[in-house]
Amino acid sequence: MNHGLLFILSGPSGSGKSTITHAVLDSMPGLVFSVSHTTRTPRPGEKDGVDYHFIDRAAFLALRDRQPGGFLEWAEVHGQLYGTSVAEVQGKLRQGLDILLDIDVQGARQVLARHPEAISIFICPPSAQALAERLQRRATESPESMALRLNNARQELEHAADYRYLIVNAELESAITAFKSIIIAERLQQRRAADGTPLSQSW
Amino acid sequence: MNHGLLFILSGPSGSGKSTITHAVLDSMPGLVFSVSHTTRTPRPGEKDGVDYHFIDRAAFLALRDRQPGGFLEWAEVHGQLYGTSVAEVQGKLRQGLDILLDIDVQGARQVLARHPEAISIFICPPSAQALAERLQRRATESPESMALRLNNARQELEHAADYRYLIVNAELESAITAFKSIIIAERLQQRRAADGTPLSQSW
Repeated sequence: MNHGLLFILSGPSGSGKSTITHAVLDSMPGLVFSVSHTTRTPRPGEKDGVDYHFIDRAAFLALRDRQPGGFLEWAEVHGQLYGTSVAEVQGKLRQGLDILLDIDVQGARQVLARHPEAISIFICPPSAQALAERLQRRATESPESMALRLNNARQELEHAADYRYLIVNAELESAITAFKSIIIAERLQQRRAADGTPLSQSW
Repeated sequence: MNHGLLFILSGPSGSGKSTITHAVLDSMPGLVFSVSHTTRTPRPGEKDGVDYHFIDRAAFLALRDRQPGGFLEWAEVHGQLYGTSVAEVQGKLRQGLDILLDIDVQGARQVLARHPEAISIFICPPSAQALAERLQRRATESPESMALRLNNARQELEHAADYRYLIVNAELESAITAFKSIIIAERLQQRRAADGTPLSQSW
């Protein structure tokens, strides 16, 4: 059985990353979301075990400090802890599922160090103005939180060049198509194929 | 201005390569077909300068033997000469156009030796039986020509593993989507980008 592919997706809050991710996951069988652990409070509509595993800080730190470590990557963002469980990722890859990790630039760097074969994708809004407008529309941000997010976005964008693919989300449908295309193309790459079985069987 | 990408497409006669190519070219602005030179007779409906530059053997050999050589690659297939003009390819790449070369496995090897950055794609029918049926439907082949094509197809398939991407054309629409996805994904790869201009301009 083929081993699954590991996709890393980063992009600032307001880049449209979540909307794009859900559209892509809904239409691509065999691609699954890796559910992260976090200490932050659920937003309205978010479900435990679906959007995140919501745990408290003590439980997070215990998992992080276990030997061997329980997280493939972890990071503190906006004062909250986020982490990707090793067990969840390894289990799904072994089942042949392709996994999508939605993580920040620090997390991406940690995962790429352990999984250099991972396929990294950065989604960014077309401009700072577009990002500010999207965050305002979301209307869950205080002015302070918004300023923090805009500043973090600028810092994250400095790392965009380290990713294999860059999607500029100027128009949602095109961004979704771009993301799907990357997944389809990476699946067709022959360096992924373990052997020539499909061809040799029928010829 | 960005330099165009060079896509190499190979696959046996009857693989559906031409149908797929035309569907993709019609829907992807910025991607153009490189028109090959050939000494073979036009098939019904084929136009000189559009499907091929149809030239006689003497003219082909004169272009081939010019110093420096007038062909990026050339080959003898089914007793006929086929070649890709250097001038045509270089001119289009410099204009920023992405070029699609529809060439056989020998030609692909020659182009990859000079352009290792070229993106190679192999299209194959799902089985030998499917290929035979498609050639029979075409109904332009004599029994001898058909046997030759099937034999050549088996030989070409031995080189399929040398290509970066493999598309198994079991279902036409999926094969077209696969091909388009490869082009979109390759365009989004950041190693292609000459600089960070688009991002830095708006941030």
